[in-house]
Amino acid sequence: MKQDKNIPYKVYLSEDELPKAWYNVRADMKTKPAPLLNPGTGKPLKAEELYPIFCEELVAQELDNDTPYIEIPQEIRDCYKMFRPSPLVRAYFLEEALGTPAKIYYKFEGNNTSGSHKLNSAMAQAYYAKKQGLKGVTTETGAGQWGTALSMACSFFGLDCKVYMVKVSYEQKPFRREVMRTYGASVTPSPSMETEVGKKILAEFPGTTGSLGCAISEAVEAATTHEGYRYVLGSVLNQVLLHQSIIGLEAKAAFDKIGVKPDVIIGCAGGGSNLGGLISPFMGEKLRGEADYRIIAVEPASCPSFTRGRYAYDFCDTGKVCPLAKMYTLGSGFIPAPNHAGGLRYHGMSSILSQLYDDGYMEATSVIQTDVFKAAEQFARVEGILPAPESSHAIKAAIDEALKCKETGEEKTILFGLTGTGYFDMVAYEKFHNGEMTDYIPTDEELAASLAKLPVVK
Amino acid sequence: MKQDKNIPYKVYLSEDELPKAWYNVRADMKTKPAPLLNPGTGKPLKAEELYPIFCEELVAQELDNDTPYIEIPQEIRDCYKMFRPSPLVRAYFLEEALGTPAKIYYKFEGNNTSGSHKLNSAMAQAYYAKKQGLKGVTTETGAGQWGTALSMACSFFGLDCKVYMVKVSYEQKPFRREVMRTYGASVTPSPSMETEVGKKILAEFPGTTGSLGCAISEAVEAATTHEGYRYVLGSVLNQVLLHQSIIGLEAKAAFDKIGVKPDVIIGCAGGGSNLGGLISPFMGEKLRGEADYRIIAVEPASCPSFTRGRYAYDFCDTGKVCPLAKMYTLGSGFIPAPNHAGGLRYHGMSSILSQLYDDGYMEATSVIQTDVFKAAEQFARVEGILPAPESSHAIKAAIDEALKCKETGEEKTILFGLTGTGYFDMVAYEKFHNGEMTDYIPTDEELAASLAKLPVVK
Repeated sequence: MKQDKNIPYKVYLSEDELPKAWYNVRADMKTKPAPLLNPGTGKPLKAEELYPIFCEELVAQELDNDTPYIEIPQEIRDCYKMFRPSPLVRAYFLEEALGTPAKIYYKFEGNNTSGSHKLNSAMAQAYYAKKQGLKGVTTETGAGQWGTALSMACSFFGLDCKVYMVKVSYEQKPFRREVMRTYGASVTPSPSMETEVGKKILAEFPGTTGSLGCAISEAVEAATTHEGYRYVLGSVLNQVLLHQSIIGLEAKAAFDKIGVKPDVIIGCAGGGSNLGGLISPFMGEKLRGEADYRIIAVEPASCPSFTRGRYAYDFCDTGKVCPLAKMYTLGSGFIPAPNHAGGLRYHGMSSILSQLYDDGYMEATSVIQTDVFKAAEQFARVEGILPAPESSHAIKAAIDEALKCKETGEEKTILFGLTGTGYFDMVAYEKFHNGEMTDYIPTDEELAASLAKLPVVK
Repeated sequence: MKQDKNIPYKVYLSEDELPKAWYNVRADMKTKPAPLLNPGTGKPLKAEELYPIFCEELVAQELDNDTPYIEIPQEIRDCYKMFRPSPLVRAYFLEEALGTPAKIYYKFEGNNTSGSHKLNSAMAQAYYAKKQGLKGVTTETGAGQWGTALSMACSFFGLDCKVYMVKVSYEQKPFRREVMRTYGASVTPSPSMETEVGKKILAEFPGTTGSLGCAISEAVEAATTHEGYRYVLGSVLNQVLLHQSIIGLEAKAAFDKIGVKPDVIIGCAGGGSNLGGLISPFMGEKLRGEADYRIIAVEPASCPSFTRGRYAYDFCDTGKVCPLAKMYTLGSGFIPAPNHAGGLRYHGMSSILSQLYDDGYMEATSVIQTDVFKAAEQFARVEGILPAPESSHAIKAAIDEALKCKETGEEKTILFGLTGTGYFDMVAYEKFHNGEMTDYIPTDEELAASLAKLPVVK
C-alpha cells in the first residue's frame, strides 16, 4: 500500500477533541428553510402546537434558525463515547484498485450495533425525552436502522420504546426486529389495528405491506393518544440534521488535524439525515464564503425526490396527520418501487437541504440499484467493510468521481459518508449475486400523477 | 457517567504505535507444547511432512518454539490498518450498572465485517499462501466467523477460497454464507459428496448435520488433492495464536499508555485463538516472573474441554486425517450438544494453552448457555454493543468477577476479550427472548465413553 506521508489510514479524534456543540447550519443560511405549517390553518406552526407531538427542547431546536452552535449536554456526550468518534478513513486500497489520482476519504458511521449514523440523533432525542420526564417514545422504522438506534437509546436512558415497523420489513427482516427486542423495544408491523389511521389504511388497502409514510402516521397517533409519550423521527427534521452535524464536525476536525481540505463531498440522501449531518460545517463555510466545496446528494433512481421531485409544501406522512413541510417531494402518496435501500425510500427531503439545493449550494444525482450493488461489492472486497445499500449510493458516486479524475489526471480530494453496514441486508446481496435484482425508474406519468395530488397551500 | 481522571472511555493506539512483530509465547515457556505427531508412525512431524497441508512459512511458525518476536510483514501490517487498532474500552456503564468497585476493560475485536478477531490470522495466512504462489486455500467454518474472515482475506490477496461449512450452520445461517459469497468464496455444506471423507461420513451417518471436526477432514482432503491449494485453520494451531497475539500486544500497549495494569484477564475458549492471543504478552511476563496476572479461560458447560477433558494426544478432526495433537480434549468423536456459541463447539484445545493450563499458569471455568445470554443482554443494554454468543462467555465471567469485588470491596482491574458481535446470531437471541433456550451438560458417562476412544500413542 502506498501511503501519503503524514496521512494515516484512519484518523481518530481523541476524547478531548470531540465536538462539544452541534452546528446549526440554518444560522448561516440567508434564505431560511420554510416553516412547518398547520395543515388545518395553513399557518406556520407555533412551538405550543408541536408540544403534543415532540419534546419541548426538541421543538426549540426544530424552530431555532439562528443559534449557530448548540451545546451537546454532557450526558449525550458521554453516551456518544460508546460509539464515537467514528473514524475518517483514507480509502488507500480503493484508490489503488481504481488507479485514480484522486484521494478518497470516507467517514464511517457503521461501527455500532444500530449499524448506522442513526444513533447520533436517537441518543439525543431519548435524552431530551427522559429529561422531560416522559414514559416513552414512539417511532416508525423501515429498513430498521432507526428503530434499532432508538431502541438502544431508550434502553440506555430507561424509556419505553414503541416501534411501528413497515410490515414488509418486519416480515423480511426478523433479525432487525430481534435486535430491537434485545434492547427491550416493542415492535408492531404497520399498518396495524392498534391505531385509527392504521385501521383506516387497512380498510382502504387490505393486504398492503405498508410504507414509511404510513408507519409515521401510526407512530404519531400512538404518541398523541398515550399519556407521557411523544413521537420521535430519525430523519427529515431540522433537529435531526442538527444532531447529525456531529458527523461533519468530527470529519472536519479530523481533516484539520492532518491538514487536508476536501474538494468534493458526497452523501446518500433519503430524508437527509446523513447528508445534512456530514455536510453541515462544510456548508457553513460555503455559506459564509470562507471556502468552496462541491457537494453532491445521491439518491436512488427509484425514489428521486431531488432530481425529479417538486419543491413544494407536502405532507410528511401518508395518513396526513403530520404538519406540512416545504421540501423536494414526489408527493406523499408516492409509493416507491421495492428497493433494497429501505432508508432512501421516502417521498420527501429535509427542508434545510431542499432550500440549499434550491439555492444552488449543492448538486444531486440519482443512481440505479444494480450499479449501487456493483459498487458495494467492489468496495467490500478492497476496503473490507460490507456496506449498507443506502451508503453504497455514495460509494457509487464517489467511485464515478474518482474515475473522472483518472481521465483528467486531477488529484481531487473526495469525502463521502459511509453511513452504515449491510449485515442485515444479505437478502439484497443474495439477489444481486443470483442476478435477480431489478431496477425500476418511475415514468414521468407516474410522477406527474403523484405530484398532482400535492396539497394546495394558501 | 463517572469517569476516572486520565482514563478515556476508549483507548486507540495511533498508527505508529501499532505492533510491528507478533509475540510467540512458546519462547518463554519452560515446558514447550507437545509436538504434533504423525498418526501413522506416532513420531513428531517434520516440517516437510506438513508442507502438503500448510504453507511453508506457516509451518515454520507452527514449529518455532524459540523465537520470541516474529516480524509482521509490511503487507499484513497494511491490511491490519483496515480494521486495527481495535479499541480498549473501559466499561464505565457496565461498572455503574453493577455497582462494583472493579474497573472493567474489554478489548473489542468485533468492528470488522467478519465480526470477530478471526481476521487477524486470516490476513496473515492468506498473505503467506499468496507469497508461496498458491492458487487458493481451503478451510472449514462452523458459526461462520472464520469462513467470513478468510473470504475477506482471500479476496484481498487475490486467492481462491473454498469453505466447508458445517451443514447445520449452512442451513441456519444463510446470511453468513452470503457474506462469504460477497467476497467471492465458494461455500459447500459439510459433509458433502465432494470428498472421499465426506462420502464416508455420509454413508456411516446418513442425514448428519455435520460438525467442525468433520468439515476439517473435508477441507484438509480438498487441499491435499488439489494442485496449488493448502489448508488453513482459524484456531487451535500455534501459528494462529501467534497471529492473534496482536490482540494482547495492542491491549498491553494501550494499558501502558494509560498507566494501568490488569489483575484478572478473561477470555472465552473454544480452540483457543482469542484467549491465546489476548493473554500472550501478559502470560509472557508471568512466565518470565516479571508480573503476575490471574488468567481465566471460559468455556461452555456443554463442551468443557479444559474443565472436564483429558490432557492427551488426540485427533484434531473426526475423519482422523489430521496429525495428532496433545491437548485437553473430550475425544475427537465427541459431538457437543447444540449450543449457539458455534465457535466454542470444538472437542479439543490449543496445545499451547493446554500446556499452560496443565502447568498451572491459568484457570478455567465453564458457564451455561442461558446465563451467557442473560449476561449478553445486560451488556448490550448498557454498553451498546450486541455481543456474539462466544464473547458473551467472557462477559458472564467478567460480570461474576466484578460482583465478587462488590462483595469484598476490592478495586480489581479486569480485562476481558470481547471477540465479536452477534449480528448473525439473532436466531439464538430470539430463542432466548422467547424462553426457548435450553442448557445441556454432558454426563460423566457420556464423556467417559468419548474419552475411552482416544488414540493410543506409543
